[in-house]
Amino acid sequence: MKFIACDWGTSRLRLRWHGPEGLREIASDDGASRLAARGEDRARVFREALREAMLQLDAPVGLPVLVSGMASSSIGWRELPYATVPFSLTGSDVVGEWVESDVYLISGVRGESDMMRGEETQALGWAEQVGEALPDQVTLILPGTHSKHLRIDRGAIMAITTFMTGELFELLCQHSVLRHSVAADAPWDPAAFREGVAASAEDRLTSSLFQVRTRQVLAAQTGAANRSFLSGLLIGSELRALGSGETPIVLAAGPALRESYSMAAADCGLASRWSAIEVDGLAELGQRRLWKRLAPSTGN
Amino acid sequence: MKFIACDWGTSRLRLRWHGPEGLREIASDDGASRLAARGEDRARVFREALREAMLQLDAPVGLPVLVSGMASSSIGWRELPYATVPFSLTGSDVVGEWVESDVYLISGVRGESDMMRGEETQALGWAEQVGEALPDQVTLILPGTHSKHLRIDRGAIMAITTFMTGELFELLCQHSVLRHSVAADAPWDPAAFREGVAASAEDRLTSSLFQVRTRQVLAAQTGAANRSFLSGLLIGSELRALGSGETPIVLAAGPALRESYSMAAADCGLASRWSAIEVDGLAELGQRRLWKRLAPSTGN
Repeated sequence: MKFIACDWGTSRLRLRWHGPEGLREIASDDGASRLAARGEDRARVFREALREAMLQLDAPVGLPVLVSGMASSSIGWRELPYATVPFSLTGSDVVGEWVESDVYLISGVRGESDMMRGEETQALGWAEQVGEALPDQVTLILPGTHSKHLRIDRGAIMAITTFMTGELFELLCQHSVLRHSVAADAPWDPAAFREGVAASAEDRLTSSLFQVRTRQVLAAQTGAANRSFLSGLLIGSELRALGSGETPIVLAAGPALRESYSMAAADCGLASRWSAIEVDGLAELGQRRLWKRLAPSTGN
Repeated sequence: MKFIACDWGTSRLRLRWHGPEGLREIASDDGASRLAARGEDRARVFREALREAMLQLDAPVGLPVLVSGMASSSIGWRELPYATVPFSLTGSDVVGEWVESDVYLISGVRGESDMMRGEETQALGWAEQVGEALPDQVTLILPGTHSKHLRIDRGAIMAITTFMTGELFELLCQHSVLRHSVAADAPWDPAAFREGVAASAEDRLTSSLFQVRTRQVLAAQTGAANRSFLSGLLIGSELRALGSGETPIVLAAGPALRESYSMAAADCGLASRWSAIEVDGLAELGQRRLWKRLAPSTGN
């Protein structure tokens, strides 16, 4: 392809390029957070980190780089304003900037009271993938440290809602009193996970969370089961916010989260509205869609 | 008085004695958690910590010590089984043990799927304080790191529910992405607090929490206001779990929590059922009530 796809996250930097011999891909720990701490001259620090990563990737010299994620944030290469909703999935509303002659930063999108950086590009990629089959109304879920729910109406993102599901899970496992009641690296326990999903129906999360401890102390549940219970409680709590209705829901995630979110969705009564797809490659696909606009004459 | 009141918490050890010259009181960092880490022979470690604290208190030699809290837990002097609900506020259901000829440990209480150690003694103290005026049905709230809601019916605790309100607040302020959006030691901002209480009505806490960040990034709210907003969100979320009904609610807390919880209660529509009292001294009063049973002939 005619450009290099870059996903510059808070903690990781990833580059991908499809050459004649297939996909080349590298990832490093040069995330935005670490680079921002390194010095005052952000443009220089980010430029050098990118150059180093490009050497590792060993793609042809001179290809432009499209960058999604945190490089356009306040801890990034250059802070760009957010695009706003409604945000067309054609890519026509993207806010971006060439910060070098061959480096294009794609900015995030803000809603009325929420925002994202990076997920907008994945949403463009999903639109590219489904093409004409894009539903009239749909909620796209991109889970992770911060799970993003994107309400899409006739081809445009209308609203963004963030759930701190992944971050809360890690915080509680590592720093709270519950750390004594969950195992560090336990295999997934679907039965305990579903008990957590069921417990999320009570709608009083700050209390339900303590059940992780009471299950261990009073009911001798193991830390392995409790880890899955906590996950079910938090994911169930997130999915119940979707409420009732008919709007289809599409989850884009890796295999593990597809399995757990889909199980929780079924137990929350969302099965008839639910589908799940692989997230890997969506960001790059979104950049392809954008590339057609940036360089319409070069193809992709 | 004829005994020394001891509250042995996870992180603090407190002793109180009312002598002819008034109240003597000492507190140290010899909480159960620290002592449990010190060695294998728990009885020796706890006995020595208590002896040292007694020397500081300088009360008459030979007085018995009544101990509430974590000294009866798995990280304590000796682990005692929980008393169970229904738990009479006369003190007749207390589980306790003389671990030395002059040291009496008071164990905690468990409900169907929750438990407490220490708060049962405060509840006994409240019953001692109100005497004949104890309502037929009432919910007693003892807020803190873990806020306990005790459902009381005709003089007995029937159910316990724990809310992790205080611990979540500290965790989120110290370890989450929200730490960049809250000030470390900001004065209380009642208006922002009430905005947090209002936001808790949405009933999707893992999402509402992220508003602490979006308020800073998108609406330029200061970290000082955001700290109060977060507090309002978590306390509001706790109080909304009380639901509707007529049952009176009594909050026992120090001045700061009385003010914030009472403001949140009013905004959650609980004003007509709400009253708030000072918590200081309730544990000792509960031990007095118990002392009458342990040593009925000695008076108090």
